[in-house]
Amino acid sequence: LSTELRSALVRAVGEEHVLVDPSLTGSYETDWTGRFSGRACCVVRPASTDQVSQLLRACADKHVPVVVQGGNTGLVGGGVPVGGEVVLSLTRLADLEDVDQASGQVTAGAGVRLSALQAQARAAGLDFGVDLAARDSATVGGLLATNAGGIRVLRFGSMREQVLGAEVVLADGTVLTRLSGLPKDNTGYDLVTLLAGSEGTLGVITRVRLKLVPQLPARAVALVAVENTASALSLLARLRTTVATLSAAELIFASGVALVRESAGLAAPFQEEYPAYLLVECADRADPTDALVEALGDCPEVLDATIAGDAAGARALWRYRETHTEAINASGVPIKLDVAVPVARLPEFIDRLPAAIGPAVTDVPDARTIVFGHLNEGNIHVNVLGVIGTSGGEDRAEAVEDAVLRLVGEFGGTISSEHGVGRAKTRWLGLSRTPAEIAAMTAIKRALDPEGQLNPGVLLSR
Amino acid sequence: LSTELRSALVRAVGEEHVLVDPSLTGSYETDWTGRFSGRACCVVRPASTDQVSQLLRACADKHVPVVVQGGNTGLVGGGVPVGGEVVLSLTRLADLEDVDQASGQVTAGAGVRLSALQAQARAAGLDFGVDLAARDSATVGGLLATNAGGIRVLRFGSMREQVLGAEVVLADGTVLTRLSGLPKDNTGYDLVTLLAGSEGTLGVITRVRLKLVPQLPARAVALVAVENTASALSLLARLRTTVATLSAAELIFASGVALVRESAGLAAPFQEEYPAYLLVECADRADPTDALVEALGDCPEVLDATIAGDAAGARALWRYRETHTEAINASGVPIKLDVAVPVARLPEFIDRLPAAIGPAVTDVPDARTIVFGHLNEGNIHVNVLGVIGTSGGEDRAEAVEDAVLRLVGEFGGTISSEHGVGRAKTRWLGLSRTPAEIAAMTAIKRALDPEGQLNPGVLLSR
Repeated sequence: LSTELRSALVRAVGEEHVLVDPSLTGSYETDWTGRFSGRACCVVRPASTDQVSQLLRACADKHVPVVVQGGNTGLVGGGVPVGGEVVLSLTRLADLEDVDQASGQVTAGAGVRLSALQAQARAAGLDFGVDLAARDSATVGGLLATNAGGIRVLRFGSMREQVLGAEVVLADGTVLTRLSGLPKDNTGYDLVTLLAGSEGTLGVITRVRLKLVPQLPARAVALVAVENTASALSLLARLRTTVATLSAAELIFASGVALVRESAGLAAPFQEEYPAYLLVECADRADPTDALVEALGDCPEVLDATIAGDAAGARALWRYRETHTEAINASGVPIKLDVAVPVARLPEFIDRLPAAIGPAVTDVPDARTIVFGHLNEGNIHVNVLGVIGTSGGEDRAEAVEDAVLRLVGEFGGTISSEHGVGRAKTRWLGLSRTPAEIAAMTAIKRALDPEGQLNPGVLLSR
Repeated sequence: LSTELRSALVRAVGEEHVLVDPSLTGSYETDWTGRFSGRACCVVRPASTDQVSQLLRACADKHVPVVVQGGNTGLVGGGVPVGGEVVLSLTRLADLEDVDQASGQVTAGAGVRLSALQAQARAAGLDFGVDLAARDSATVGGLLATNAGGIRVLRFGSMREQVLGAEVVLADGTVLTRLSGLPKDNTGYDLVTLLAGSEGTLGVITRVRLKLVPQLPARAVALVAVENTASALSLLARLRTTVATLSAAELIFASGVALVRESAGLAAPFQEEYPAYLLVECADRADPTDALVEALGDCPEVLDATIAGDAAGARALWRYRETHTEAINASGVPIKLDVAVPVARLPEFIDRLPAAIGPAVTDVPDARTIVFGHLNEGNIHVNVLGVIGTSGGEDRAEAVEDAVLRLVGEFGGTISSEHGVGRAKTRWLGLSRTPAEIAAMTAIKRALDPEGQLNPGVLLSR
């Protein structure tokens, strides 16, 4: 950190918010998975958009690149330094306005935690459309920059669908402010939704204007036994035309249910064991149970079904799906992939997974693949257990990852459905994006950040 | 049209689809309002993405700019030539695939008419989220390029929220194909949603992948008398927290109701006359009437209300809102503005309209302003009658337009909520977009169309 740059940064945010001591910077330099880590030249903690603008101008002047960090809950290394960058931590931008009741919207600083936003919405009789497990740490800015999804995408969409405005600072310090919250505004390119999923490479989001959604307190949950993925899909297609309140459609398999039963001590969901299960949730203001029961009654795909009659029963059914993650983690460090393929091709993709993974783990007798996911989006989490930790495990993990992602490419799918590209997936980007698309993205990056100041190496290769 | 360019165009699409005779090109050279008109150097009618690519390459080689046209139903002159351009008419790209039941999605050529798309969706037990009056002419490509909204935005959003993929040809003929229909795909910038609302200036959309929505055949419609815009807003805010099936919230006023009553011979909706009315519609699979009645019962804003008990009654109530357009047109050519302001400021905006418009029409005793709109989006259609057609009417019309748009700018609103900027509104773009935003848009335009080949003068000034 040059004296000159340091003075400029201190001028912007004050001495105490320019961190250089490793005991202070450490937690900003490693992601929470522990997999990505690098030394920052310093960590700066602005408290306003104007400070962000001053900081970016100073870094641009000195040609020192910047890494943008929210709650540091990312999974692909997009928010931590490689070496020498200024880390811009936005958690002090935590101003959360009152809900605007007239529009059903709220404005939040980039550093506001998702759980705080949810609490604010709920206190106003509304709710926020995105929810995910990292809600107590993840920040609104990071959620938007990574276009976070989570468990309600089927009903409300991802962050891109929630955002109505933002304040953004470009690499040269230019501030774009668009916070009026106009749901219909056809005056040119929508720079705000372009920021969604840009992973900090186009601009620094400092504030966001978000739409809120109705509270839907009445739930009906069914766990439905089916023959296979194709039957689950056919069942979901049927429900789409007969039920208007669908809020989740989660696919799990016998292997996953066996794992969560042994790990969490759950009872068998049915007397018989079935190959696959679809967990369906409906949410509404009035009780949607009767409508769901009626709809399921007409579906030939249903081998057996159990429908929760109350909140406790609903939670019990959800545990078959939700304890997958902890059961998988409890069995050692897994190889984790977050991919999607066109929904109609999902059955074939899942059928071909074992043959794709097999060659990479031939000499690992305990290797075990657990698959589960969000059926409506064709989004599957592929977890391979028992490989990392064995001798040569890291190489095998990379071979597994490569084999699965190549298969995804072959199916016209995405190598990253939810988590983003970050630094972890850049080498595979070409499997999901054509050279023409990558060229167009690079042109847009150059248009808004010609010097490549923001998050270099994230999303697009350096 | 040079011989060389003509040969290249003919090579791409065949002799009969390169139109040069004025009797053939005429209908492509004037928009349907009759307000925008210009001579094209020719009109070409490609039938495939590959042909579009060849045509664009040929035009780029010869530096002849291109104007892209769908169903020619735009209102701001964005799809007709100024003089000398090649008009690219996409109506032959009318291939409409079967609905993909597994994903609830469909792929359509850019030239598919909205009504054809809706019919296809409905035959599959689903529906399309966007609907508007020009449905028999407007094309899917044009709807996406202009981010069309219409009467269901409250429930399903605009075109940007319906699109999951597109095939796009850039100015140099490069084809970007992204039609897998992955609702969750976090591999970089979303070029598809960037195209929504770009008005043909960034690329030519040739095919789109669209999500479908559930059919909601059961409707409940209420016409509610309220004191003013502020009460209507407060009522809507209340309904947002108590009703999950809202599908329309349309604001009309006593002046508009008087006009439609005299024009269409409608009966008085209530024994008494009230200053303002909110038309609320709920849509669901099961009858939402009871829930709406119950919700309205608790609202102090309700001065009187009539709730339709059946489909005929619902249509009758909708006529108070829907006949506004024909009643306005029947009284002569109106000055029409399509603007939005932040919802919370709408009452103040509407209060200030008369004083803003007044000075421009002081010597037009018959001038009459009719306002109505989509309350949830703060989107108001301002119609000034009795001015165009009087002596000096065109100048007065421009003065009215300028006064209203300046007031919109003052309120942080948008000069074009639905219709787009086109050629009609470019001079006022700076009222809704800051210089920094316009610079960012220009940079993106240059990144994807460096030579300015596509729709020059549309959206951004030349």
